[in-house]
Amino acid sequence: MEGAKREEGGPGMESEGKAAAWTMRRHHEFLREEVHGFPGFTHRGIPSPSGYNAPEQVHITQGDQVGRAVIVSWVTPSEPGSGHVKYWKDSGDGSEPGHKKMYDTKYIYEIGDGDTARRFSFTTPPPVGPDAAYTFGIIGDLGQTSDSNQTLEHYHSNTKGQAVLFVGDLSYADDHPLHDNNRWDTWGRFVEKSVAYQPWIWTAGNHEIDFLPEMGESVPFKPFLHRYHTPYKASKSTFPLWYSIKRASAHIIVLSSYSAFGKYTPQYQWLEEEFPRVNRSETPWLIVLLHSPMYNSYDYHFMEGEAMRVMFEPWFVQNKVDLVFSGHVHAYERSHRFSNVAYRVSNGQCTPAYDKSGPVYITIGDGGNVEGIANRFTEPQPSYSAYREASFGHAMLEIKNRTHAYYTWHRNQDSEPVVGDTQWFYNRHWYPHEEP
Amino acid sequence: MEGAKREEGGPGMESEGKAAAWTMRRHHEFLREEVHGFPGFTHRGIPSPSGYNAPEQVHITQGDQVGRAVIVSWVTPSEPGSGHVKYWKDSGDGSEPGHKKMYDTKYIYEIGDGDTARRFSFTTPPPVGPDAAYTFGIIGDLGQTSDSNQTLEHYHSNTKGQAVLFVGDLSYADDHPLHDNNRWDTWGRFVEKSVAYQPWIWTAGNHEIDFLPEMGESVPFKPFLHRYHTPYKASKSTFPLWYSIKRASAHIIVLSSYSAFGKYTPQYQWLEEEFPRVNRSETPWLIVLLHSPMYNSYDYHFMEGEAMRVMFEPWFVQNKVDLVFSGHVHAYERSHRFSNVAYRVSNGQCTPAYDKSGPVYITIGDGGNVEGIANRFTEPQPSYSAYREASFGHAMLEIKNRTHAYYTWHRNQDSEPVVGDTQWFYNRHWYPHEEP
Repeated sequence: MEGAKREEGGPGMESEGKAAAWTMRRHHEFLREEVHGFPGFTHRGIPSPSGYNAPEQVHITQGDQVGRAVIVSWVTPSEPGSGHVKYWKDSGDGSEPGHKKMYDTKYIYEIGDGDTARRFSFTTPPPVGPDAAYTFGIIGDLGQTSDSNQTLEHYHSNTKGQAVLFVGDLSYADDHPLHDNNRWDTWGRFVEKSVAYQPWIWTAGNHEIDFLPEMGESVPFKPFLHRYHTPYKASKSTFPLWYSIKRASAHIIVLSSYSAFGKYTPQYQWLEEEFPRVNRSETPWLIVLLHSPMYNSYDYHFMEGEAMRVMFEPWFVQNKVDLVFSGHVHAYERSHRFSNVAYRVSNGQCTPAYDKSGPVYITIGDGGNVEGIANRFTEPQPSYSAYREASFGHAMLEIKNRTHAYYTWHRNQDSEPVVGDTQWFYNRHWYPHEEP
Repeated sequence: MEGAKREEGGPGMESEGKAAAWTMRRHHEFLREEVHGFPGFTHRGIPSPSGYNAPEQVHITQGDQVGRAVIVSWVTPSEPGSGHVKYWKDSGDGSEPGHKKMYDTKYIYEIGDGDTARRFSFTTPPPVGPDAAYTFGIIGDLGQTSDSNQTLEHYHSNTKGQAVLFVGDLSYADDHPLHDNNRWDTWGRFVEKSVAYQPWIWTAGNHEIDFLPEMGESVPFKPFLHRYHTPYKASKSTFPLWYSIKRASAHIIVLSSYSAFGKYTPQYQWLEEEFPRVNRSETPWLIVLLHSPMYNSYDYHFMEGEAMRVMFEPWFVQNKVDLVFSGHVHAYERSHRFSNVAYRVSNGQCTPAYDKSGPVYITIGDGGNVEGIANRFTEPQPSYSAYREASFGHAMLEIKNRTHAYYTWHRNQDSEPVVGDTQWFYNRHWYPHEEP
């Protein structure tokens, strides 16, 4: 166990504090071999930055509930380094502000020391408010293949995106022998070009479980929880895998498909208490992220999200959730607005039907991972499914104001301005009309 | 934090080893007040045994997969005591055997030292085998009221019971201010008269979660996991709340309604691998214990077990589970044999129907807890429900051989020989005929 170390620090971190340092296995010879054996894009072009112990795998996420704090995380490969983050307003003089950041402001930040210092930037969101326009990118099941790179480059070339809603399955390290954790490092270097500059909002997928009891790893989610922090305490959660943030005009709830969600469990209890905290006058857009789709008409992972649907769909409908984004299925699907919440075991009422209070469910697990595309549908296309296509890509959600949001899906085989699927979404609280 | 301590040791413990000692809060004045404020039976009549630091709350459970090991647990109230268990064959000379116990043999065991030593006994089961007759008591949601005491006394008076399948909700400590953990102690003293002499097989219920984040207790199941051990490693499980044992002619699978059970989770993965390990030629009777019933036609907790049903019912049917025992609903219900596994979201097939490979589901959460009886039904009685009655009681399952088992339910208001409900069960592997 030689080598690496990660420090975490961050400007305006309100809820997280500094994480403890820890060491990770790192063996360069082994790493190089593994990279050669890896199909597709191998990001060999993204070595560690030069300079002894230079910070790498830099990533940021929202650090509080309202967007005025940022969690900055990185790895130093050779030994523990400083956990200090220097940061200043882009228009400022380089001195550090003493407390919370301003809204809607570009900051420069620097980590590492001396020759190996590295500099990045981020822009804080507008204040939380009902008509705060904001554009989210949506990416899922990214992995680290040439398809993954195409997705990320496409997203990068779309200058509208201000933050990413990531719906789970990051590195696919567990697809490699012994869940090769070097894959977490290579993935961290691969996505740095985006996630060092804008916050990605993390959802845990099945590839984050990293359960390997035969090797003594029987604690689920260990690498993910160590590497990717979330501001869960700020939303009164007790565990990093379920939490919420507010950002501009959106209230975003993140759930964990692979944690307990039965009645009385911590996640259930948190969500039950979370919905009443949503204030549509402040954040009109109510968005849920979870990995395993509750509705999916592909032949892959069909009905795997059914158990969570049974528990939570009634709350989604009662609380008029606007949009539910999921991953898991390596393809794209958008649903109609509907619900299926009348079932009482013996009443026979179990068919999804139009419901203006129902969310639209979007599967966007098409980031481009090593397992390939999901290209078998269930037939015929069920009535709840509005559009489905087995292409890699990403989506954009442009929230315009409290009533309207413009949504687009972008396929990797097209140039970024081309739209593979699109929909104007009407807010379920402020403008609950049927969409065109 | 003064006072108590628990040691665990045990003869022939194959999988558990000795648990670490720990201290528990204990304040006698406070305890006495609480007891006075407690409705119903208060077991004030069960003080700690006399003598300084005498072992108390003695309980045993199966310690391996086949019934030749026992886990013995107890609490010493004042300071850490010896973790040693002396034991010998009832017919023997008092010398300790050096290794595994014999089948079908009565053992005496003694814990504590000198004046405070206490002596109990247990009888090992017959060897695992297809026609090994054995009688299980079944108790759920016991609590510690006068009704609880009636249930335990009734069970005790039925001399046929050799081990108890306990389907969750033990002490109801969490119904008391700050989840008063003294309630775990009083419950331990209350049930000692049975569980020190025959193994109780533990299932976790919602009252075992003890989740109290506002007091900093955000790790679910903490008191239960410390006090009630299970032989989970012997069945290749990675967590104490899901595991299996073989005992006589039964293979018993214990599941956790309040842990993660989605696809890819540790519990799901374990159960998927567990079913192929079941050998009906060795253990014809396949029994599942879980707290929250998958089928329940009471107006209490209706459909709370639905999410787990969605995940696991297909496996129960494929593997021809004989019986599923649950608690949670404070009443009694027995189902017909049926299944409901044809649902495909949009096919409309969601109604339970007779299935000779389906288990019988029995709700036996009628132990007699502080929350009272569940006496509202859903109406009309659904076709899957064979018998339901809101009375406290317990059940007995007398396995006769590989084909037949005689099952009875005993109500607290009757004398023990009176049978409130009865059914001959035919084994689903060896004699899959419709029962009368």
